[in-house]
Amino acid sequence: MKIHVPEGFQFGVVSAGIKEKGKHDLSIIYCDSGANVAGVFTTNTVKAAPVIYSSEILEKNYNDIKAVLINSGNANACTGDRGLRDCHTISEELSKTLNIDKDKILLSSTGVIGVPLPVDSIVSSFPKLVENMSVNNIEKVASAIMTTDTYPKIYSVKEDDKNFTVCGIAKGAGMINPNMATMLAFILTDAYIEQNMLKNMLKEITEKTFNIISVDGDTSTNDTVFVMSSGKKKGIDTGKFFDNLYNTMLKLAKMIVKDGEGATKLIKITVKGGKSVEQCKRICKGIAGSPLVKTAFFGCDPNWGRIICAVGYSDDNVIQKKIDIFFDNHKIVAKGVEADEFSERDAAKYLSENDEINLIVNLNIGDSFYEYYTCDLTYDYIKINAEYRT
Amino acid sequence: MKIHVPEGFQFGVVSAGIKEKGKHDLSIIYCDSGANVAGVFTTNTVKAAPVIYSSEILEKNYNDIKAVLINSGNANACTGDRGLRDCHTISEELSKTLNIDKDKILLSSTGVIGVPLPVDSIVSSFPKLVENMSVNNIEKVASAIMTTDTYPKIYSVKEDDKNFTVCGIAKGAGMINPNMATMLAFILTDAYIEQNMLKNMLKEITEKTFNIISVDGDTSTNDTVFVMSSGKKKGIDTGKFFDNLYNTMLKLAKMIVKDGEGATKLIKITVKGGKSVEQCKRICKGIAGSPLVKTAFFGCDPNWGRIICAVGYSDDNVIQKKIDIFFDNHKIVAKGVEADEFSERDAAKYLSENDEINLIVNLNIGDSFYEYYTCDLTYDYIKINAEYRT
Repeated sequence: MKIHVPEGFQFGVVSAGIKEKGKHDLSIIYCDSGANVAGVFTTNTVKAAPVIYSSEILEKNYNDIKAVLINSGNANACTGDRGLRDCHTISEELSKTLNIDKDKILLSSTGVIGVPLPVDSIVSSFPKLVENMSVNNIEKVASAIMTTDTYPKIYSVKEDDKNFTVCGIAKGAGMINPNMATMLAFILTDAYIEQNMLKNMLKEITEKTFNIISVDGDTSTNDTVFVMSSGKKKGIDTGKFFDNLYNTMLKLAKMIVKDGEGATKLIKITVKGGKSVEQCKRICKGIAGSPLVKTAFFGCDPNWGRIICAVGYSDDNVIQKKIDIFFDNHKIVAKGVEADEFSERDAAKYLSENDEINLIVNLNIGDSFYEYYTCDLTYDYIKINAEYRT
Repeated sequence: MKIHVPEGFQFGVVSAGIKEKGKHDLSIIYCDSGANVAGVFTTNTVKAAPVIYSSEILEKNYNDIKAVLINSGNANACTGDRGLRDCHTISEELSKTLNIDKDKILLSSTGVIGVPLPVDSIVSSFPKLVENMSVNNIEKVASAIMTTDTYPKIYSVKEDDKNFTVCGIAKGAGMINPNMATMLAFILTDAYIEQNMLKNMLKEITEKTFNIISVDGDTSTNDTVFVMSSGKKKGIDTGKFFDNLYNTMLKLAKMIVKDGEGATKLIKITVKGGKSVEQCKRICKGIAGSPLVKTAFFGCDPNWGRIICAVGYSDDNVIQKKIDIFFDNHKIVAKGVEADEFSERDAAKYLSENDEINLIVNLNIGDSFYEYYTCDLTYDYIKINAEYRT
């Protein structure tokens, strides 16, 4: 797939000794002309230092950001006052290397919690990082920001009209839960979008993309999404831009779930026929959070009892006798009991032959619906997380 | 450990062909003189037929229950109108065999959801079930009610004063979450306790025992706890009875968590120094529900970052800089950052050398506290649940 890179950005990567020797772990996204930036951050009360630091920068200087520095391998979270001081030191030093104002730099980190950043090692790699900046390096950045990810996540779209481009990169595989878990995403565009509009679009689209995915229900200390507009292309159709931004963010969100730690299947959950969107959302989350449902999908076991059970404990106002459940167009449950047309063999076949499962629950008590994405729960999730640090 | 059996009860088990051939899967607890019974049931909106049936029986006839019939291997859940009809048929037939009123029989089921009970096979085994009833068979019942349990759960205590006895049996290993997941417990006593008092005690103690345990966060369709008093011993010290009932239910609850599917460790979580009990409870549940925390304990990895992260996303009113975390008496986190005295080696040693872990989080913002029990998340949880049916 060809990657379209928006005008106005350069990218650099370097190995700064944060991850094992030789691996790229420090990246820069550079916008010489200064970008309009909108950001959303984790809802976790325990916020990493770069989250606190960058949200403060964005409050005072959202329309002239020149650089985003991203490190992987260390979250700079739960590092106390030292963590924040390190953010200041790093920005200060990078501002000297780039010869720009310190307040034009955003920071983002992901990795292990509770360990101070190796500041000296990071700072001493700045000359090399800046030296190798180029418009061609965005895929290297997508790789350098990974932690337990098994593949880089990048998606771009070029709109013929006025020729503007949207390109996003993201990382995230575990600690993924609505309200954004250890996930970082950087969406770049050359479309000129006024900052307030950019902010509103980001907020609206985040609700419909990064906030409808769940891998394990853990919400991280470091989640960050930035949308950066270099403004090189003026007179943009904002409706078209919105659609492209939405598509890019949804594609990235789905890539994250599909790369969920140890996951073998992407599961799309649709709850419809509800009395309210909130009810449908609650049930989506309940199903997506059920280890029993997730292990059954891993085992390709069409164990609908676990699904209806999760529906039942997620919401007090469902009516068991009205619930229908489908795998794609196969009816599994009709009116709360096994559907006449249910074939265990066919249903198991559907689960084993597809790596994207379409689970539909119809509550049949109203007109609301909600969609959600999760993955299965596998041996490898345990392996990755029981052995992550040691 | 000697099992003390309360006076007035007999027990029978039989193989009724619900589980694989030859395994005991149908049990009876029989109280010839009629027992005072209090019951609590699942909070899941999707309730199994025997839960609906037995709660109706208890509403009209709580003080003269003569038999509880329990089957394992099949939950009789999501079986629609047929499920309830089967309850009536089974009770009707058992009442003939026992020559007692149908309304003096309670039913309880656990096992796979969505499959109708083999009623004929159950009914035809009644003569043998009743024939082999004896006061000595309670341990056989504790074994016969198991599903994915790896050992039977039984605890008894005999109080010298007035010689009354409390004896409980329970099953449960997965789908365990507050508000009682697939767990059944039957607590028997010969102490005469007035029914309203028995009901209030059960409610209060359930909150402090079966409702503070979590294996996987799934809440089942079938949870049931019955306390049955044969009333053979009069003039009981009700304070002492309360203590014994509490101890018995807490012991059974801890046995269930310790036998959590695939679990290698029992984790006791204490959150203290909170502004309210609700806050401490929310954080206990958040930590107990975090797959990342649970896999770290499995890996004996003292990854406190995941714990403080779970604290942060569970509650909006914690103050990161005030949080202390301990493993037993080892201080791991002080004021939100790694404690000076933290030794990764010692902490890992504590985790690997103990199968009962004592995790304490002090929020240092108030005087409230809450305790909670969970277990680690392991390869075997996946194995058991990905392969349960097939």
